[in-house]
Amino acid sequence: MKRAGLLGQLIQNLCCLPGVGAKTAQRMAFHLLQRDRNGAKKLAESLLHAIEHIGYCRQCRTLTENSLCGICQDSARDGSIICIVESAADVWVVELAAVFKGRYFVLHGRLSPLDGIGPDELGLEQLEQQLASGAIKELILATNSTVEGIATAYFIGEMARKHHVQASKIAHGVPMGGELEFIDSDTLSHAFNGRKEL
Amino acid sequence: MKRAGLLGQLIQNLCCLPGVGAKTAQRMAFHLLQRDRNGAKKLAESLLHAIEHIGYCRQCRTLTENSLCGICQDSARDGSIICIVESAADVWVVELAAVFKGRYFVLHGRLSPLDGIGPDELGLEQLEQQLASGAIKELILATNSTVEGIATAYFIGEMARKHHVQASKIAHGVPMGGELEFIDSDTLSHAFNGRKEL
Repeated sequence: MKRAGLLGQLIQNLCCLPGVGAKTAQRMAFHLLQRDRNGAKKLAESLLHAIEHIGYCRQCRTLTENSLCGICQDSARDGSIICIVESAADVWVVELAAVFKGRYFVLHGRLSPLDGIGPDELGLEQLEQQLASGAIKELILATNSTVEGIATAYFIGEMARKHHVQASKIAHGVPMGGELEFIDSDTLSHAFNGRKEL
Repeated sequence: MKRAGLLGQLIQNLCCLPGVGAKTAQRMAFHLLQRDRNGAKKLAESLLHAIEHIGYCRQCRTLTENSLCGICQDSARDGSIICIVESAADVWVVELAAVFKGRYFVLHGRLSPLDGIGPDELGLEQLEQQLASGAIKELILATNSTVEGIATAYFIGEMARKHHVQASKIAHGVPMGGELEFIDSDTLSHAFNGRKEL
């Protein structure tokens, strides 16, 4: 049944959320209208504020409401080590692990010539300027281990070599707590090839 | 990591959606900001419109943006048969099945004395007025088959009897396409007790 009116519109618009289909959107709409109108109001205002004020950091291209993000502003972070990631969500994940004290550079994608995504779309010109300035000593490549992600890492690695900047790639292998029985053979082959002496 | 700022607020506010935890909210926020700002804007506006304009139908208490909902306004529907449901979402589900051509009465809950939910909270006074007016010939009770839902149906059934209105309960049994092997014993006992001659 196609239900017209504001309720139908709300359900349809909730479907723009990732992982939300018609059934879930319906449940969300009824929940908000019947039990949490205050939360719905806050959510709506928060969405409007976010899309109006959140842009991209002019240095590392992550999502931020300022022209320079909190990490780039923080003088305690080491600006000579740059971690290259595919998306702003990846920055969040690495920050959560609290293993990295340098700065980031967000590509917002990966090289994919068939989709028309080349070096320009990923801001690599901007990255090259930073490499040329001599302020960067090391690049850590943390792109995803898909075909495009690996190709992107290789391309950026070559760029780093040209500017005599050291480049490394994060390790791939068996995840912590992962059982061998459930690991795919590609990961396992990486784990064996990347073995370390005890 | 607690991330402050508009992005953190947006993630926190997305958690008010049912079934959405911190991780999903994070994914939604990044998706909207990086790929679908237009959809986010529409969603926010739709939420604000909905909470401002959607109220309850004065006759059947379902959610509607008018004082009388589309079903109560529709003169083709039979106003002498009323289906009693627990929530506005249930109205939607019954409409989707397109088996019922009468009107509804939405309780917005079930009798639950321990939680302070009595006949007044469910609008039963209003239902009794409708029963007393003599316009209703039959009540179909479609409350959920929980302990409270069954008690509520019994209570309303007694009310109908007082006003000499016929009351029935929707059938419980094995769902269509359901395999016996996976049916719980309570449902199966209902299915056997409610068996019909071929």
